[in-house]
Amino acid sequence: MSEVFMRMGHSQEDAYLATDVLLEADLRGIDSHGIARLSGYVRLWEAGRLNARPQIKVVREATAAATIDGDGGLGLIVAARGMDVAVKKASATGVGMVSICNSNHFGIAAYHAMKAIPHHMIGMAMTNASPLVAPTHSNERMLGTNPHCWVFPARQYDPLVIDLATAAAANGKLEIAEREGKSMPAGWAVDAQGHASTDPSILKQGGSLLPLGSTPEGGSHKGYGMAAIADLLSGVLSGANFGPWVPPFVAFLQPPADPVGQGIGHFVGAMRIDAFRDLDGYYQAIDTWIHRFKNASRIDADQPVLVHGEPEMKHYRKRKKEGVPLNGKVVADLQQLAERFKISL
Amino acid sequence: MSEVFMRMGHSQEDAYLATDVLLEADLRGIDSHGIARLSGYVRLWEAGRLNARPQIKVVREATAAATIDGDGGLGLIVAARGMDVAVKKASATGVGMVSICNSNHFGIAAYHAMKAIPHHMIGMAMTNASPLVAPTHSNERMLGTNPHCWVFPARQYDPLVIDLATAAAANGKLEIAEREGKSMPAGWAVDAQGHASTDPSILKQGGSLLPLGSTPEGGSHKGYGMAAIADLLSGVLSGANFGPWVPPFVAFLQPPADPVGQGIGHFVGAMRIDAFRDLDGYYQAIDTWIHRFKNASRIDADQPVLVHGEPEMKHYRKRKKEGVPLNGKVVADLQQLAERFKISL
Repeated sequence: MSEVFMRMGHSQEDAYLATDVLLEADLRGIDSHGIARLSGYVRLWEAGRLNARPQIKVVREATAAATIDGDGGLGLIVAARGMDVAVKKASATGVGMVSICNSNHFGIAAYHAMKAIPHHMIGMAMTNASPLVAPTHSNERMLGTNPHCWVFPARQYDPLVIDLATAAAANGKLEIAEREGKSMPAGWAVDAQGHASTDPSILKQGGSLLPLGSTPEGGSHKGYGMAAIADLLSGVLSGANFGPWVPPFVAFLQPPADPVGQGIGHFVGAMRIDAFRDLDGYYQAIDTWIHRFKNASRIDADQPVLVHGEPEMKHYRKRKKEGVPLNGKVVADLQQLAERFKISL
Repeated sequence: MSEVFMRMGHSQEDAYLATDVLLEADLRGIDSHGIARLSGYVRLWEAGRLNARPQIKVVREATAAATIDGDGGLGLIVAARGMDVAVKKASATGVGMVSICNSNHFGIAAYHAMKAIPHHMIGMAMTNASPLVAPTHSNERMLGTNPHCWVFPARQYDPLVIDLATAAAANGKLEIAEREGKSMPAGWAVDAQGHASTDPSILKQGGSLLPLGSTPEGGSHKGYGMAAIADLLSGVLSGANFGPWVPPFVAFLQPPADPVGQGIGHFVGAMRIDAFRDLDGYYQAIDTWIHRFKNASRIDADQPVLVHGEPEMKHYRKRKKEGVPLNGKVVADLQQLAERFKISL
């Protein structure tokens, strides 16, 4: 991975950072956001839509706030650098909030937010993304699956990593159902007219994903609202594109001809815990929280109640030992990349 | 309302503030959080669980952060004062984040977050609340309906007020269905064993509300995660109670005998827009955002696509002119209060 990033023109430092973000996704079991994305980034770079030598700059700032221009760089790198600024500000003032414009796909939100953990800070990361989700009462793709991620360090337990896309189900779940020839649950997506569908290929026929909550009576205006929050903080506040204008991160789709801002936007933040509470008090409380939730009464004796980040850490520990399994299509992709860049595998 | 608050012992300033919060809820059409709550606050005060003369104090702070001890006061007052601190900090540093412990029910989250608007700031408010919601795979009430509220000022349009409880449906919707003798949609609540129910009285039989997303396949772990975020920021970070230990705000239910913190917790924040972007750029962008979303393609020609805060502003404009309609039960409650406090109506 790092060789490919360097052949694209990235500095060694940036290439290692981008590799680290993808590797973390694969280790955490989020296969859709790991090395499988590598060839897509290369295609975006080949299309001239990715700057491998970005001059990432703070373009506006206050003591506890900043806006960063990612100079068209890879979001994996830009957002991580933005989080460094947030952490630095939080060290000084207790809180650092950073909006980011002119970026690209940033990988898993959790990578950036988790950078707060070693500093005894709460971390936060959001992004907007190319439109796939229709707001309540609409059949038009207006919002991305715009995740909210908040990370809370703990002491006796692993950190709580709450990283959630604001659509009822991410695109990847539809692709799995389609590959397996299964129907999908109603509530994940609608057809081009906005009617319920259980056909997992419906997005290819002009359909849209549904916001978390799925239907008006299920509270889809809430999922729509959460996606809007991420879009407004990431796009409108930073000067990036927003809503239906967010450029696609796949090379085969063209960006809108009438942009309203620069690139994709992110929003990251850090809050120093001891600015709010002594560290011991906080860590005792969060360990109590986690312990209590893990031991909540179960509906089914065999299905434990989970806390956020727990399934990912299970993958992480296993894969750290045994390696990351890659599926055949991804391996073929990587072999092509190796040939393309003359990298020996 | 203000007379009642003063008879309870509140200062005139605090009484007017608490009245303003409830009135705003009624004007915005959120009847469940307006004057209808007044008698409940009185009962809580009569039970000795509400301090009408709170010494609200900043107990810890950094340049951009603070924790406030509400001294057992009414959340309506405590959270509003906390937001004043957040706004003041944001004026100086760009961002102000304030966690609050030792408080009580804070009314509509939007009231507190909207205090940012005249300062050209983005406002935020969250709270935890007494447990009614079962996490994914659990049949135990572990979380409140813990709202997330973010408010974004606009220029040509009304501000975007995104204020959402993190349960699929708030308790009030079940009460309406029960009153009307109707069944409720599956996905709002489960019975004591954690099985789907369409009986709107199920909470009285030991059932629980469901997180936004309703079922594991509908993404209920996301609603659970959002409720957790509000709980962790409001409770764990501030030193308030959290999770199943959050005390009930109704007098007829006793607080847990083994508290893990002080009172109910809130989390409020403000971000000065021009710390991130010049105001003109921001306002042009958000007006474009709102215009575009209001004009998104409709599924049904007669049902417009709404932006958040729009239904509430429709109520506000109508009720500001015509007054707030009160139902008979609320009027009877108020008459009792008037007699109790010898206030002439």
